[in-house]
Amino acid sequence: MKSLIAVALLGSAFLALDAQAAGDAAAGEGKVAACAACHGTDGKATAPIYPNLAGQNADYLVSALKAYRAGERGGGMSAMMTPQAQALSDEDIADIAAYYASLTP
Amino acid sequence: MKSLIAVALLGSAFLALDAQAAGDAAAGEGKVAACAACHGTDGKATAPIYPNLAGQNADYLVSALKAYRAGERGGGMSAMMTPQAQALSDEDIADIAAYYASLTP
Repeated sequence: MKSLIAVALLGSAFLALDAQAAGDAAAGEGKVAACAACHGTDGKATAPIYPNLAGQNADYLVSALKAYRAGERGGGMSAMMTPQAQALSDEDIADIAAYYASLTP
Repeated sequence: MKSLIAVALLGSAFLALDAQAAGDAAAGEGKVAACAACHGTDGKATAPIYPNLAGQNADYLVSALKAYRAGERGGGMSAMMTPQAQALSDEDIADIAAYYASLTP
């Protein structure tokens, strides 16, 4: 019985972790004002040097934003992206990623 | 007259530069064997941690690949991408970028 409870708790923990990682697209929509100047509110880049984000994988967007935030991503537009990402919490990043991932490319 | 010729030559130079930067999508298709394991031949990522590349802006893809090649992009999948990009010439990068940019997302 104890092991069943342990498995159930472990399962819940993973579900909670997954929900957090997935982010909230609706909340993300309210957080992309700074992103939109280059990436568009619709996820279509405003100039060819910027990436389109509409329909991009959320996991990848989270990974990229965290790498910018940690100052690990240099080159390209990193001089702009590093300070932008440093203003974001883990939750902001998850929400913004979920929002752009939810859009049609 | 001399200045007209100079302007014409300058114009041709910019066109040539643009053509080179734009890359050759058909040639690029023959160069994505190593990319396809993660990004797909169709530009759809094979796992959520990788970015989709179909319909991505070619200029952005060139910028990102050159940053990986220069070892400027750390974090994320850089341990995989840096050596991949270091195997590519400027022409390879332009062609691969043109190929993925030409695909429907």
